[in-house]
Amino acid sequence: MPIRVTIWNEFVHENTNKVVQGIYPNGIHGAIAEGLKKLLGDEVAVTTATLDQPEHGLPQDVVDNTDVMLWWGHCAHGKVSDEIVDRVQKRVLEGMGLIVLHSGHFSKIFKRLLGTSCALKWREAGERERLWVTSPAHAIVKGLGECIELPETEMYGEPFGIPTPDEQIFISWFEGGEVFRSGCTWRRGAGKIFYFRPGHETYPIYHNETVRQVIANAVEWAKPEGNWAGAMDAPNVPVDKAPEKITAKGGSLHEEGQEGFK
Amino acid sequence: MPIRVTIWNEFVHENTNKVVQGIYPNGIHGAIAEGLKKLLGDEVAVTTATLDQPEHGLPQDVVDNTDVMLWWGHCAHGKVSDEIVDRVQKRVLEGMGLIVLHSGHFSKIFKRLLGTSCALKWREAGERERLWVTSPAHAIVKGLGECIELPETEMYGEPFGIPTPDEQIFISWFEGGEVFRSGCTWRRGAGKIFYFRPGHETYPIYHNETVRQVIANAVEWAKPEGNWAGAMDAPNVPVDKAPEKITAKGGSLHEEGQEGFK
Amino acid sequence: MPIRVTIWNEFVHENTNKVVQGIYPNGIHGAIAEGLKKLLGDEVAVTTATLDQPEHGLPQDVVDNTDVMLWWGHCAHGKVSDEIVDRVQKRVLEGMGLIVLHSGHFSKIFKRLLGTSCALKWREAGERERLWVTSPAHAIVKGLGECIELPETEMYGEPFGIPTPDEQIFISWFEGGEVFRSGCTWRRGAGKIFYFRPGHETYPIYHNETVRQVIANAVEWAKPEGNWAGAMDAPNVPVDKAPEKITAKGGSLHEEGQEGFK
Amino acid sequence: MPIRVTIWNEFVHENTNKVVQGIYPNGIHGAIAEGLKKLLGDEVAVTTATLDQPEHGLPQDVVDNTDVMLWWGHCAHGKVSDEIVDRVQKRVLEGMGLIVLHSGHFSKIFKRLLGTSCALKWREAGERERLWVTSPAHAIVKGLGECIELPETEMYGEPFGIPTPDEQIFISWFEGGEVFRSGCTWRRGAGKIFYFRPGHETYPIYHNETVRQVIANAVEWAKPEGNWAGAMDAPNVPVDKAPEKITAKGGSLHEEGQEGFK
Repeated sequence: MPIRVTIWNEFVHENTNKVVQGIYPNGIHGAIAEGLKKLLGDEVAVTTATLDQPEHGLPQDVVDNTDVMLWWGHCAHGKVSDEIVDRVQKRVLEGMGLIVLHSGHFSKIFKRLLGTSCALKWREAGERERLWVTSPAHAIVKGLGECIELPETEMYGEPFGIPTPDEQIFISWFEGGEVFRSGCTWRRGAGKIFYFRPGHETYPIYHNETVRQVIANAVEWAKPEGNWAGAMDAPNVPVDKAPEKITAKGGSLHEEGQEGFK
Repeated sequence: MPIRVTIWNEFVHENTNKVVQGIYPNGIHGAIAEGLKKLLGDEVAVTTATLDQPEHGLPQDVVDNTDVMLWWGHCAHGKVSDEIVDRVQKRVLEGMGLIVLHSGHFSKIFKRLLGTSCALKWREAGERERLWVTSPAHAIVKGLGECIELPETEMYGEPFGIPTPDEQIFISWFEGGEVFRSGCTWRRGAGKIFYFRPGHETYPIYHNETVRQVIANAVEWAKPEGNWAGAMDAPNVPVDKAPEKITAKGGSLHEEGQEGFK
Repeated sequence: MPIRVTIWNEFVHENTNKVVQGIYPNGIHGAIAEGLKKLLGDEVAVTTATLDQPEHGLPQDVVDNTDVMLWWGHCAHGKVSDEIVDRVQKRVLEGMGLIVLHSGHFSKIFKRLLGTSCALKWREAGERERLWVTSPAHAIVKGLGECIELPETEMYGEPFGIPTPDEQIFISWFEGGEVFRSGCTWRRGAGKIFYFRPGHETYPIYHNETVRQVIANAVEWAKPEGNWAGAMDAPNVPVDKAPEKITAKGGSLHEEGQEGFK
Repeated sequence: MPIRVTIWNEFVHENTNKVVQGIYPNGIHGAIAEGLKKLLGDEVAVTTATLDQPEHGLPQDVVDNTDVMLWWGHCAHGKVSDEIVDRVQKRVLEGMGLIVLHSGHFSKIFKRLLGTSCALKWREAGERERLWVTSPAHAIVKGLGECIELPETEMYGEPFGIPTPDEQIFISWFEGGEVFRSGCTWRRGAGKIFYFRPGHETYPIYHNETVRQVIANAVEWAKPEGNWAGAMDAPNVPVDKAPEKITAKGGSLHEEGQEGFK
C-alpha cells in the first residue's frame, strides 16, 4: 500500500507574482509533487491541497487518509483557520508524519506543535548556502554526500526559536556569515515531524535534485509507525477496572467535570 | 533581590464545595503561598492571582514582573482567555519559569507550550502513591529521600501525552496498578518548565511538608537565567549589516510581508 | 534481503544450573532465536554467539555482517574482552542496531555506549510486573495493548543510572511497590539502541508471546538506516580542499600528532 | 563557600614548543585560572593539575573536593591512566561539573562519558570563526551579544560524533565554509557537562575576554546541584524491605553474584 502524501501549499505568490509563476508554473506544490513521483513512484500516492479550496483542501476525510503531510506557507499563515490547525495537530499526534518546509517555520501548525516562537533572523541576498549533514547515515540523508550546496538562497540565521530537536540532521553555513539548524526532527505524540529549511518562492530550490531526494527520504522516514486512536482521550479508569485491588478510599469532585483536549 | 513568584489558581472548587473549603480555607493558592514563605522566607516575594480577577489577576505588568509562575486549574481551563495565555507563553519564552501542578496538565498554557494532548488516565479512589526519584541530586529533589509516599491520592496513569521530558525527575507508583511520569522538566525558549503531579482539591496535598519542599526547590530551580527580550522577533538582517561580504544577489518578495509571532 | 541478526548470550547459567537448563534447554539465545524466526520468518537471518566461543563468537566478519545485535549477559560481564567491546561499539556507531536485554544493563557494551553507571535496585521475589506503554503506536509496541503483564519477575527499581532516553517506550509497575524505565531508546552515532527489561534466567520470560513480539518489533525498528563508514574518522581538511577561500593564516603543531578514536 | 575548581591541563605543548610558551608562559591552565580569578574572585577557589604530577595531579581527595573540573588535552590523551578516568567519571556521575575544552573532545574522559566517537573534521589555517548563540539567556551566555567573533582559529567541522546535546548553546561558522556545534551541554548522572570549542595552543584564545566570560559562566552553571553518593550502587532490596507486601514467590540465582559498576 503506497504512502498517502498530501502536499499543502498556500499557493499565493504563484498567483500574484510573475517571477514566482515562471519558476513554479504548477505551483510550489506541483514541483514538490513532481519530485516525489519521480523518486518514489508507486511507493507514494500524492495529492495536493491549497488555501483557497474549501476547508483549505483539508476536509476531515482527506486528513484522516493522509500518512505524511508537507506544509509550505509564507505570506498567508494568518488566513489558515484554527479549526483546520486543530484537525492537523490531532492527526499528527495520532501518527501522521509532518514535513514543514522553509517559511513554514512560521505556520500556525508548526508553532502549535512546538509551542515556541519559531522565530529566526533572515535576509534575502541570494547568498550561497551549504547544508552540512550532522547525522550521517540517518534515513533522511540517504544517498547524500557530506553537504548540500545551494548557490543562491535566502538566509535564515540563529537563534531559531525551537525546542532542542530530538535529532539534528543538517546545519547550514551562509556566505554572509550566519548559521542555522536547517534540518531537525521531533516526535510529538505518535507523529514524526521534520523541519527542512531549503525552499523559497524566488529560487528554483524545489527543482534541485538533492533537495528533492531529502524530501523523498523524509516522506519515507515520517510515515506512521502505527495509529494512536486515543491520542486525545483522558479516560476514567474506575475502581472496578483498576488492575489491582485498592484498599484506601477518597473523595471526588469529578461530577463537576474535567475538560478534555480541545 | 527576592525571586518574584506569582501563584495562579482558578479558585473555583474552594468557593463551591465545602469539603474543599475545609481543606483549603485560604484557597489552594493560599496553602502553596504559605509553604513557600515558610521554606524560602526572604528569598521569595510571593503574590497570588485568580481567574475571577480582572485579566485573571495577570495584567501585563504583573506578568512582566514575575520570575516564576505556578499554575493550578481544574474545572475552568476553558474560561482562561487566549490573550492571557499568549501573554504568559511569551513571558516563559523570554525566561520566566513555569511550574504546572496536578490537573494543570490540561491547562491552556501547558498544552500551548508543549504542543501535545497532555492527556492521561485518571481514577479517584484515594489510593496510595509513591513518587520515586529518578534523577537523584537534581536541584528539584534537594533534601528528599528515595521516594515521596502519599497515603491518599487521585491516580494519573500513562500514557501521558507529552513530548519526551528533557529531564525525568519523578515517576509514580499507584496502589491500583498504574505508573505515571510525575515530575518532568522542559526548556522552552529561555524559560524552564516543571510539571509536578501531586495536588488535588479533596486531599490535603499542599499541606504536606515534602510536597512543599519540592515546590520550593522547583521555584529556586526555575528562576530566570536571563532575559531573552527578543524571543519573539524575526529581524531582517540586511546585506549592509551582514557580517561577511555577499557577492551573489537574489530576488525578494518581502514587500508582501512575512508574519511574525502572534 | 533479510535483517541479519546476531543474538549474543553469555550462556553460563544454562550450563551450570538445572533450573535454568529446564527452562532454556537450548539456551536463552536459543529461545530468543526461536521467537524471532517464528514471528519474522524470512525477514530475518538469525545466528547466535556465546562467550565461550573464540572471540566470544564475534570475530570481525560476524560483527561486520550483523544488522542488529541482541545482548544478554548476567554473571560474566567481566569476562567479555575489551577488544570485542571496542569492535561492537564501533559497529553500533557505524549503524548497527543493538538490543540490550534485562541484566545486560550491566554489560560492558551498554555502559560503554551510555557512559553512565547503568545501576539500579533489584529484588528476586517472583513478583507481578506490569509494563505500561508510554509511547503508543511506536514501532516497538506494534500489536500490543496498553500494558504487558508478567506474573512472576525479578524487580528492577529506580533510580536507573542512564542518560535521559531519547524515547520512553515502557515504564514498569511492580507488585512490591517500585517503578522502572523498562523500555528506552537512544541513538548513538548512526546506531539505534533499545533497552528492554524483561528476561531472567529463572523465569520463562523469553517463551512469553508478547515479550517475543516486542523483541521482534525492536529488531525491525533497530535495523540500520544506512552505514556511516567514517564514524571514527577525524579527517584533516587542508586549505586547498576547504570549500571557501581562507585569507587568514595561523600556526599549527599537528606534526606532533593528534590522536584518533581508540 | 566558594566553588572549588580544578583546571586540568596535559601541559605538554607549553614545555616543548617556544611559540606556545610565548603565548602561555604559565601554561594554558595558568591562563584559564587567571581568567576565572579575575571574573569570579572569591566565588571560586581555583587549583590546577597536570599530567606529569603523581596521579596526574588528581588523587582521590583532590577529585572528591572538586566541584567543577576543566579539562584541556591534545597530544597526550593516551597517557592519561584509565584509573584516573574511572575516578573522574564516577565523580561526575555523583554530581561534579565537567567543562571540556577544545581538543579535549578526544580525551578519554569525554569519550567515556558520551560513549561515542567524539570525532570531527579539522584544519589549521588561522581562519575567522563566529560562534552564534543558539540558546539566548542561558546561564552560560550571560553578558554576551548574539555571537563571539574570533579572528584566527583552528577549524572544527561537522559531523561531530556526539549524542544529541541536551542543550545547544553555540554553533560556529568558519570562514572556510564549515559549521560546528561549539557549545553543548549534557547531564550524566548528577553531573553537568559542557563542551566548549574555543582554545588552541597556538592562538591566544584563553586571553580573550569573552571566551573567559563563557568559561566563568559555565563554572557557575556546572557546579553540583547535590551529591549522589550512591551513583554506582546496585542495591538489593530484599522482600522484607519492599514497600508493599509481595504474594508471589520466585527463584533466584544471585548467590552466583551480580557484578556492580566497574
